[in-house]
Amino acid sequence: MAYRIITISRQFGSGGRSIAKKLADKLGFAYYDKELVKQVSVETGFAPEYIEEKGEYAQTRSKLSYLFSNIGTAGIMSGMSVSDYLYTMQRKVILDLAEKGSCVIVGRCADYILKDRADTLHAFIHAPVPYRAERIVRLYGESEQSPEKRIADKDGKRRVNYEHFTGRPWGAAENFDICLDTETIGEDACVELLYEIASRKDPS
Amino acid sequence: MAYRIITISRQFGSGGRSIAKKLADKLGFAYYDKELVKQVSVETGFAPEYIEEKGEYAQTRSKLSYLFSNIGTAGIMSGMSVSDYLYTMQRKVILDLAEKGSCVIVGRCADYILKDRADTLHAFIHAPVPYRAERIVRLYGESEQSPEKRIADKDGKRRVNYEHFTGRPWGAAENFDICLDTETIGEDACVELLYEIASRKDPS
Repeated sequence: MAYRIITISRQFGSGGRSIAKKLADKLGFAYYDKELVKQVSVETGFAPEYIEEKGEYAQTRSKLSYLFSNIGTAGIMSGMSVSDYLYTMQRKVILDLAEKGSCVIVGRCADYILKDRADTLHAFIHAPVPYRAERIVRLYGESEQSPEKRIADKDGKRRVNYEHFTGRPWGAAENFDICLDTETIGEDACVELLYEIASRKDPS
Repeated sequence: MAYRIITISRQFGSGGRSIAKKLADKLGFAYYDKELVKQVSVETGFAPEYIEEKGEYAQTRSKLSYLFSNIGTAGIMSGMSVSDYLYTMQRKVILDLAEKGSCVIVGRCADYILKDRADTLHAFIHAPVPYRAERIVRLYGESEQSPEKRIADKDGKRRVNYEHFTGRPWGAAENFDICLDTETIGEDACVELLYEIASRKDPS
């Protein structure tokens, strides 16, 4: 059996998204990142930008978030925080997409949501902070915050979000089939490795 | 630059040791596991069996251990627990072996001890509990304890020992260049993957 679905979890700035895109192209699989956001936007009525921010970086247990949910703009949210509601909808969209066909899904707790599917390969992509700092400045430009601060901030929020919704520690090797350091292995070599594993007829 | 040293950290029963041995043979590298224990035995005067038990499974902060160290059979240990003393000696042996020549080193915090060497590749090998339980019964036979209990016990002690001496969480993907699940990837494929990466002339 070759894998039909690949989930790519990643540290901010590690190149995980870029690896996921290249891997999807090479495998001829659908690629879900912004697409997934669009779909959640259609289902919930929230703006894509809002989902992108809150879908992975939710400040869970925020009082404001619960207050907003009690005002209940969407009706069905009553009793749920906006974060919980968004997670529920994201989870539904991810499960639907996995049923639909072969794909690569980036982030959004997809590794946890699809953990019981035998046809799914779970990868975690990471790299040392100096490598990521150089990479995000090169790709996204400078900003008011130092790249190290941006990394700590984004990863911190991803960690809180992931641990809140999955109850598992973020970035623990045992939750993935393969974890790769992009600085050591190289971005293109990561794509090759994942391609080889994903397209193997007999995983054992 | 190809890698000169490989450290293999592993969950109990995952096949990490067997992968390390095959990888060392394939690369023509020295293999340090029991050999390392022997060397520490020569340096410390402790029995190899004692070192094997305490070197990775130390019950740190044990009062008895400190008491023993105060009796001071080896003189130089005064003020150190036996665990701390053994770690110090193990660390020294690992640093010496790394200087000596190409090698594969199993466990014993070698990933942490050699973390700053650019010529060293760090791998973590893991697998789901049912896979490991079946494997350890097949290889080591039944015992009074269930295989699941043996796994929880050994891994628990390795975790405590590792976290005590390194200050890093055990099994965190970001501390390794590559982490592999032996059930998904397959033991022989893990050897192949590590061989390819380790023997590459240009890691990026």
